[in-house]
Amino acid sequence: MNTIIPVVLCGGSGTRLWPRSRKAKPKPFLPLVGDTTLFEATVLRCSREAGFGPPVVVTGALHLEHVEAQLPDPAASRVIVEPEGKNTAAAIALAALQLPSDAVMLVCPSDHHIGDVAAFQAAAQEAAKLAAKGWLVSFGIAATAPETGFGYLKRGAPIPESGGFAVAQFVEKPDLERALGFLADGSYAWNGGIFAFRAGTFLDELAAHRPALAAAVRDAVAHGQSEGTRFYPDAAAFARIEGESVDYAVMENTAHAAMVPAAMAWSDIGNWQALHEALDQDEDGNAVRGPAEIVGCTNVMVDTDGPHVSVIGASDLIVVVDKGDVLVCTTAGAQRVGKLAGAANQ
Amino acid sequence: MNTIIPVVLCGGSGTRLWPRSRKAKPKPFLPLVGDTTLFEATVLRCSREAGFGPPVVVTGALHLEHVEAQLPDPAASRVIVEPEGKNTAAAIALAALQLPSDAVMLVCPSDHHIGDVAAFQAAAQEAAKLAAKGWLVSFGIAATAPETGFGYLKRGAPIPESGGFAVAQFVEKPDLERALGFLADGSYAWNGGIFAFRAGTFLDELAAHRPALAAAVRDAVAHGQSEGTRFYPDAAAFARIEGESVDYAVMENTAHAAMVPAAMAWSDIGNWQALHEALDQDEDGNAVRGPAEIVGCTNVMVDTDGPHVSVIGASDLIVVVDKGDVLVCTTAGAQRVGKLAGAANQ
Repeated sequence: MNTIIPVVLCGGSGTRLWPRSRKAKPKPFLPLVGDTTLFEATVLRCSREAGFGPPVVVTGALHLEHVEAQLPDPAASRVIVEPEGKNTAAAIALAALQLPSDAVMLVCPSDHHIGDVAAFQAAAQEAAKLAAKGWLVSFGIAATAPETGFGYLKRGAPIPESGGFAVAQFVEKPDLERALGFLADGSYAWNGGIFAFRAGTFLDELAAHRPALAAAVRDAVAHGQSEGTRFYPDAAAFARIEGESVDYAVMENTAHAAMVPAAMAWSDIGNWQALHEALDQDEDGNAVRGPAEIVGCTNVMVDTDGPHVSVIGASDLIVVVDKGDVLVCTTAGAQRVGKLAGAANQ
Repeated sequence: MNTIIPVVLCGGSGTRLWPRSRKAKPKPFLPLVGDTTLFEATVLRCSREAGFGPPVVVTGALHLEHVEAQLPDPAASRVIVEPEGKNTAAAIALAALQLPSDAVMLVCPSDHHIGDVAAFQAAAQEAAKLAAKGWLVSFGIAATAPETGFGYLKRGAPIPESGGFAVAQFVEKPDLERALGFLADGSYAWNGGIFAFRAGTFLDELAAHRPALAAAVRDAVAHGQSEGTRFYPDAAAFARIEGESVDYAVMENTAHAAMVPAAMAWSDIGNWQALHEALDQDEDGNAVRGPAEIVGCTNVMVDTDGPHVSVIGASDLIVVVDKGDVLVCTTAGAQRVGKLAGAANQ
């Protein structure tokens, strides 16, 4: 069993989960599914028993308090405090530079839900084996719907003596017609933003394909400061970075892209409808949290932080009450929550 | 022009307008349409200029405070405080016993909305003329929909030298098929619970058809007590009354039932959907009161007493926020609001 270092990325604002998710306490730090927060669950499923070492968390100053409060073992963890958000390539590079060059890191977004933890852990071991051999590995999440909000990975040739495959193609977010084609085809998986790399391999590839970015991150680390378990990269050096996603900067350019299939009841909880689907539901598809009365409803979700909510006769509807804001949204309208004035002006 | 005494009945709980309407401050006393309450508007449209005298209000102790606070001229009004609710026949008899026998009274529910006040006043004068001649007159409200929640009046022969008609038949709440037939027929009107009587005529008819009820009300008044502008009927005598509606006790039995047609933009505001229809709406049929953001909605009503409400993508939906209770209800479900546990246990 390979020891894997979880690299947990805490960026993103989760505005489509407004009003529950707010700038001051966004999506990763909320107990959206069950009693643990998405961040806590991310760290907990990277358990020592499953072969993981202590985590490295990359976050910003705004959320440092939540990270340290929610880490199960803060003393054993490292927290990199980004001066500003510069997208995933830089965040992963910061973590890689804190690790031995042959360490295998598993990059985990902190705001996803994974229902089947055993399947995740098995896929992580599979990915780590390939990473240890120099592959840059994406989790290819089994597509269960024609999603237009995710990128896709097209499966290539099997990699011998592994459960993985070469990546034949990275595909950007498709339109619905293409997404339906991918689903029918069967050789396309969702790119869920979970990656396994050897730290040194990742840094070499980044330097090859994005030398300026790689140099700026090295500079920010070289001039950074440690403070207990925290590490603060140098702000001036970091400010020079042109933020780019790891997909664009590295994965689409490397000759060593691999994928491991993962069917693990994954959801990015990308909006209220996605959260509704991840929750336990009654026989009519309703899911309720907080004081509520539901009469003659199907596929209704209610989440209230106190005020009593009554819903009569509705279908495919989401009702959220949080700190004096009330959101009522059709499932079809869930993507538009982030564009509300309330979400923008919180 | 006949002088008409408005007799304003303040009973009823308005539970189908929960959570805005509550036991302690129900429907009549709320500014549901515009800035005046339904009770205020009821009294104000019975103006001196339109031939009305000072009102007599029949209410219960629970709502006395609201009645006296909202009466435009409390010193000139009389308020009868019922020891308990005993339905409309008894309430009207209490008022009739306070009036000269030849006074013409116009019985007005206090929780209806009338959009066309001039039409109301004209119909009231028409009804008063007939009442002065000994008719017991119902307002026959022009039916504009196949309502199954109202009783109907079938128009009979015209009454000479008047705008009124004999009533051919009182019809209880019909099923939808019959209601559609009534609407197509054209000779059926809604019974809106607005009546004109000469006080003495009403009491004579009540004594003829419900002698026990009439005697008990007389007894309650004989042993009652005045206190300023208030009158308190005797509770023990009043308790013996078997409550009955004026329709059952008198109108369906009298040989002198008449009706005057009234097309006056009337609504009983019987539920949230009815209120929505009575409100000003934007071009998509949405009506908003309080802080709210409406995106991609049609025929949505929002009424909030403070918390900000955002609605996305909904059609035919009602959202009400009042004192920490949130109601979300389809228009089709509006009739069921009164049966909610929240409405029952307020």
